[in-house]
Amino acid sequence: MPKPLNIAIIGHQFMGRAHSNGWKQAEKFFDLNATPILKVACGRNENELAKFANNWGWEEISTDWENVIIRDDIDIIDIATPTYLHHDMAIAAAKNGKHIFCEKPFALNLEQAESMLESAEEANITHYLNHNYRRCPAVRLAKKLIEDGKLGKLYHWRSTYQQDWLANPEAPMRWQLQHEYAGGGPHIDLGSHCIDLARYLIGEISSIFCIKPKFVNERPSDDSNKEEVTVDDASLMAVEFKNGAVGSFECTRYASGRKNRNQFEINGSRGSVVFDLERMNELEYFSSSDTQEEQGFRKILATDPAHEYAGNWWPPGHIIGYEHTFAHAAADFLNAIAHKEPIHPNFSDGVECMRILEKGSQSNAECKKISL
Amino acid sequence: MPKPLNIAIIGHQFMGRAHSNGWKQAEKFFDLNATPILKVACGRNENELAKFANNWGWEEISTDWENVIIRDDIDIIDIATPTYLHHDMAIAAAKNGKHIFCEKPFALNLEQAESMLESAEEANITHYLNHNYRRCPAVRLAKKLIEDGKLGKLYHWRSTYQQDWLANPEAPMRWQLQHEYAGGGPHIDLGSHCIDLARYLIGEISSIFCIKPKFVNERPSDDSNKEEVTVDDASLMAVEFKNGAVGSFECTRYASGRKNRNQFEINGSRGSVVFDLERMNELEYFSSSDTQEEQGFRKILATDPAHEYAGNWWPPGHIIGYEHTFAHAAADFLNAIAHKEPIHPNFSDGVECMRILEKGSQSNAECKKISL
Amino acid sequence: MPKPLNIAIIGHQFMGRAHSNGWKQAEKFFDLNATPILKVACGRNENELAKFANNWGWEEISTDWENVIIRDDIDIIDIATPTYLHHDMAIAAAKNGKHIFCEKPFALNLEQAESMLESAEEANITHYLNHNYRRCPAVRLAKKLIEDGKLGKLYHWRSTYQQDWLANPEAPMRWQLQHEYAGGGPHIDLGSHCIDLARYLIGEISSIFCIKPKFVNERPSDDSNKEEVTVDDASLMAVEFKNGAVGSFECTRYASGRKNRNQFEINGSRGSVVFDLERMNELEYFSSSDTQEEQGFRKILATDPAHEYAGNWWPPGHIIGYEHTFAHAAADFLNAIAHKEPIHPNFSDGVECMRILEKGSQSNAECKKISL
Amino acid sequence: MPKPLNIAIIGHQFMGRAHSNGWKQAEKFFDLNATPILKVACGRNENELAKFANNWGWEEISTDWENVIIRDDIDIIDIATPTYLHHDMAIAAAKNGKHIFCEKPFALNLEQAESMLESAEEANITHYLNHNYRRCPAVRLAKKLIEDGKLGKLYHWRSTYQQDWLANPEAPMRWQLQHEYAGGGPHIDLGSHCIDLARYLIGEISSIFCIKPKFVNERPSDDSNKEEVTVDDASLMAVEFKNGAVGSFECTRYASGRKNRNQFEINGSRGSVVFDLERMNELEYFSSSDTQEEQGFRKILATDPAHEYAGNWWPPGHIIGYEHTFAHAAADFLNAIAHKEPIHPNFSDGVECMRILEKGSQSNAECKKISL
Repeated sequence: MPKPLNIAIIGHQFMGRAHSNGWKQAEKFFDLNATPILKVACGRNENELAKFANNWGWEEISTDWENVIIRDDIDIIDIATPTYLHHDMAIAAAKNGKHIFCEKPFALNLEQAESMLESAEEANITHYLNHNYRRCPAVRLAKKLIEDGKLGKLYHWRSTYQQDWLANPEAPMRWQLQHEYAGGGPHIDLGSHCIDLARYLIGEISSIFCIKPKFVNERPSDDSNKEEVTVDDASLMAVEFKNGAVGSFECTRYASGRKNRNQFEINGSRGSVVFDLERMNELEYFSSSDTQEEQGFRKILATDPAHEYAGNWWPPGHIIGYEHTFAHAAADFLNAIAHKEPIHPNFSDGVECMRILEKGSQSNAECKKISL
Repeated sequence: MPKPLNIAIIGHQFMGRAHSNGWKQAEKFFDLNATPILKVACGRNENELAKFANNWGWEEISTDWENVIIRDDIDIIDIATPTYLHHDMAIAAAKNGKHIFCEKPFALNLEQAESMLESAEEANITHYLNHNYRRCPAVRLAKKLIEDGKLGKLYHWRSTYQQDWLANPEAPMRWQLQHEYAGGGPHIDLGSHCIDLARYLIGEISSIFCIKPKFVNERPSDDSNKEEVTVDDASLMAVEFKNGAVGSFECTRYASGRKNRNQFEINGSRGSVVFDLERMNELEYFSSSDTQEEQGFRKILATDPAHEYAGNWWPPGHIIGYEHTFAHAAADFLNAIAHKEPIHPNFSDGVECMRILEKGSQSNAECKKISL
Repeated sequence: MPKPLNIAIIGHQFMGRAHSNGWKQAEKFFDLNATPILKVACGRNENELAKFANNWGWEEISTDWENVIIRDDIDIIDIATPTYLHHDMAIAAAKNGKHIFCEKPFALNLEQAESMLESAEEANITHYLNHNYRRCPAVRLAKKLIEDGKLGKLYHWRSTYQQDWLANPEAPMRWQLQHEYAGGGPHIDLGSHCIDLARYLIGEISSIFCIKPKFVNERPSDDSNKEEVTVDDASLMAVEFKNGAVGSFECTRYASGRKNRNQFEINGSRGSVVFDLERMNELEYFSSSDTQEEQGFRKILATDPAHEYAGNWWPPGHIIGYEHTFAHAAADFLNAIAHKEPIHPNFSDGVECMRILEKGSQSNAECKKISL
Repeated sequence: MPKPLNIAIIGHQFMGRAHSNGWKQAEKFFDLNATPILKVACGRNENELAKFANNWGWEEISTDWENVIIRDDIDIIDIATPTYLHHDMAIAAAKNGKHIFCEKPFALNLEQAESMLESAEEANITHYLNHNYRRCPAVRLAKKLIEDGKLGKLYHWRSTYQQDWLANPEAPMRWQLQHEYAGGGPHIDLGSHCIDLARYLIGEISSIFCIKPKFVNERPSDDSNKEEVTVDDASLMAVEFKNGAVGSFECTRYASGRKNRNQFEINGSRGSVVFDLERMNELEYFSSSDTQEEQGFRKILATDPAHEYAGNWWPPGHIIGYEHTFAHAAADFLNAIAHKEPIHPNFSDGVECMRILEKGSQSNAECKKISL
């Protein structure tokens, strides 16, 4: 009989919904060794919070997360708030021995990240950082092909994460454009996803070049004035990996027509793979082991029971969507707790990712290549 | 305050799961004027049924659907069983005044279909037939473009529904290959989806040519013997529509590499659209209103709030999957009951679709074009 | 030392240009066992003809093709005229012992076609019918995969040939819309290409269903009046092949956005291929011999030396275009003459193709399936 | 009457063929104000040269290019040799008042490039540098869209030029891997194409970061020994443009499955375009001027008479190939001479391109950002 684990979530916006859905769907579609109980939803706006809790089946609500975190009956703290709040919540949760499911970006800076990891390790809890794209079936397939040596020696990583909600210079100011709340622009927000995927699929980075342009300095705020944008608008990185591969990264919110295009390509001595989040059920795969005349990029629809996670959903050819990655993460996290095993990415991945991004910012500031 | 509506579902396999998920997700992601209560799950295998009910939150179980259908506290009968059972269940549900959410294919034959419709109309209930693909945001966009005159006068409908689970001649016998349970092969199973989409997007059909080949006559049954396949293996139709357009249809389970490819293309005097269920978030659209040098098929990612249903889920570029169409259907069905308005497709669409498919079979048998 | 072969071409419009270019490029890019000499260009408009001959290097011009055909120094007659002229020219050429390179569609009707074949066979000449798409490297690859058994038993042929130059109902009258000059509409013009490819790749056809709709009855002629369209506007066929496969064909000039989309898909028990002339350097290929998790359609860029004809042009990845198929045909035709070997497609393929198309027209007229 | 211009070509390998074909096809498909006369073919291997000249119709051959360059009857020197020979040939040609059609990469280094430009300008000749991809119809369309303001303010340039002929570490040594003959690796060979396109479409570059990895240090030479590779294996650049845009570049010969993929994407405030040389007849174009629900990337088939150069070839939908860009270049070059107008790219573009590439190499060596 799976042990029930009581969850308290903090945050009820976009990520609050996506996490809540993840917990519920994990339970219905996966074999779990622990049962998620949606116990408390925390937030500031009591009315909104009540509606959110009612919709998703959270048993209680609270506007005081600090008092919830110390409750004995809570096993898991689910941090679904803006970045600038992660640090204090994670430290408090760890100190109270709670397992932590933390949304990305991990923290405002490396210092925060390191203290969060330290607390989690001291508390010996299960900690997870939600770079959910590792858990697309197609990404898992890429990982497996690499581990099986199907791509041979890796030469190139090439990723772009493109959105377009700032392409119009008259788009309004938002908290994501203010350094104090977001910790950075797409370098942090999107770049952390890309770095996480690169570390997962290729390995550790040894040096970095970075430029972080700003295209628009001021944007309209609510009161018809203009407010200063205090984060970068894009990030371009060229990196060297310890295993000899090289990589490029581009993150931007100024790519007209690209809504949420998290795309990567890997080239190795024996094969290549290509992934695009907007077609997240597909992996393109080239193998030079095919006969010369039959070689070509295969469009693999990763919806077969042979593909990780896919068999838990629908028959082959019936695609899944963005939200499903949260269910995969929730299922793996619950099972990790039950089996007392670590899960990745976790806070130590968060620290490494933040270290790389800060070195990138340093490269941008100093106009030189930075070693890690 | 939305009125609660008690649902009894019959069937707990693939469609039982997809429907249950649809009810649950509709409630969480849509504004409903009626609240779905998952009251009773009916089926034959009590153990399996109990697990199913427990997983999805059905309050009770029953192995006797006939006794459930007469219960006063049940408002909706959700028929998620194999085709050959639909008729008796729908008739009983209608006679007891229950609203009906019925899985496709509608019935074994036109006679059954007509009596099901008659019962539903006499009972004045809300009846829905689950050709769920009408409710893909990209399909809705195609409908809107047509209604807005963006494609001009319609000339061509061209659809293929391809699967590959029988491409291997040694694939085993299943109930879907036996006429008494399935009522037919892909002509019925897949063809009904295609006909429904064609009627939705183009209009009524006036004549039909059809061939229904059989590629493999016997297949291995469980006991190492071979059993006769009693349904067709594929269906090809060429039709004329009342509005002057012509259409082609191909349905097969022998298309190696095509997992669930429900694809259509429409050509009109001013534009064209293309849809493919394996990339169901996308609609390709060509407009001859664009300037000559800029004309081309656009790949529209139908994940914007401007696209029907899409705004209820995630931000633009965050794709949805197969199962979401069931939530759309559930939401629209519940609201239709609440507003005492009809919903489409319903049993009358089921009758029309079955009439066309039977004329197709007649054409195949008589080797001639049949008028409707 | 390759023997020189003197060519007389008749026709100097679109096909005159494409053929002339084919002869010239064949000589430069292929090893030929016979050297093409561009001797005489025939046509009606002497001024236009002179410019054409000068541009392409035809040594002489003549407005009297009948006198050219009887010249002893002419070895090859290249028929690049509208369809209604093919018959008389081919008969005359054959009677005078000339080898014939004949543009498609072959003839106005089966009777013409049969007499053309008879004359050619009596004269024991080398005769070629220019269904040039057989000689795309990607189509050759499809042929090879089928012959090597890579697709297994063939189940489905599915082809569409779509153009859009008549989608606008106000597009003007042209000779292609008049039965006396064209012999038919897209059923003949485009359908002959599709039938030729189907016979080449799948095999002989045993029965046919066909509808040939007309969307627009009259079109503007030069003098601001309207003129009657006397050919069909589209053709839909469903056929059975002798080997048990089934096929569908759709040919139209009313597909907005499709410029010259000659597309086919073949499904067999072990694999599938897809071809699209607008991306004619590519073949999509699915093989169920790949491991389950790695299965997917490969996009093969048929520009490798391993691909037929491709090695004669440029390095891999440097694509070729439409016109190159004419050079392939010219090279093969010249070598066929030199080696006294037959080439395909030839007049006997033309007869078979015409027989099928006429049976299609009969099916359309009689509203029933016709056996061959 | 167009004036005849006598051409002497130096080089008879890959580029010798492509140039020869370009001259011949330009004459046949374009209206020229000067007639190209294929006068002399120069090279070292007399036998090979004779076959080449005979095949392409060069009237004479010579193994002494220096004596040809001084001939009074020669108007144009076509330099189709390896890079290390360009400088001396171009200087000699200019000093003798010959117009120059020069293959890329322009020169071994900036010093050579500057002296070549200086000579050409002093001689007041027409000089052209063959970055032929500027003359793809689809690239011309991208240029037009930018000039018409359709993309708005430009933010991002993103290009990759990928080949795979070195992905296998056992692929043999070639002159392209030796610095003294090639002047560099893909940074020069492929990067020069990318830089040329970026300057053409976006504008001048103001700063550059670059890394140039080497993956394989030695490769097998003919005599079963290994020889040292003295050029880089890949090049990654991140640049800033003077107009505020940023750009990334990646050039490699280690991208398994990519044969000749010269791909770029441009994002502006109002639209985006994407180009891929392996599908060189297509341009993808996104416009935010489309209505919200209809926005998407259009696949424009640039084969319409509305597209530059396309109308000279075949009807819409009949694609052209790699070699056609050489015919476009030849035609424009001949007309530029006839009209005494400059043509681009020319030697001044070659100098700018080389300056940027050298700054890239400096960045790589000094591990810092370099301003231009």
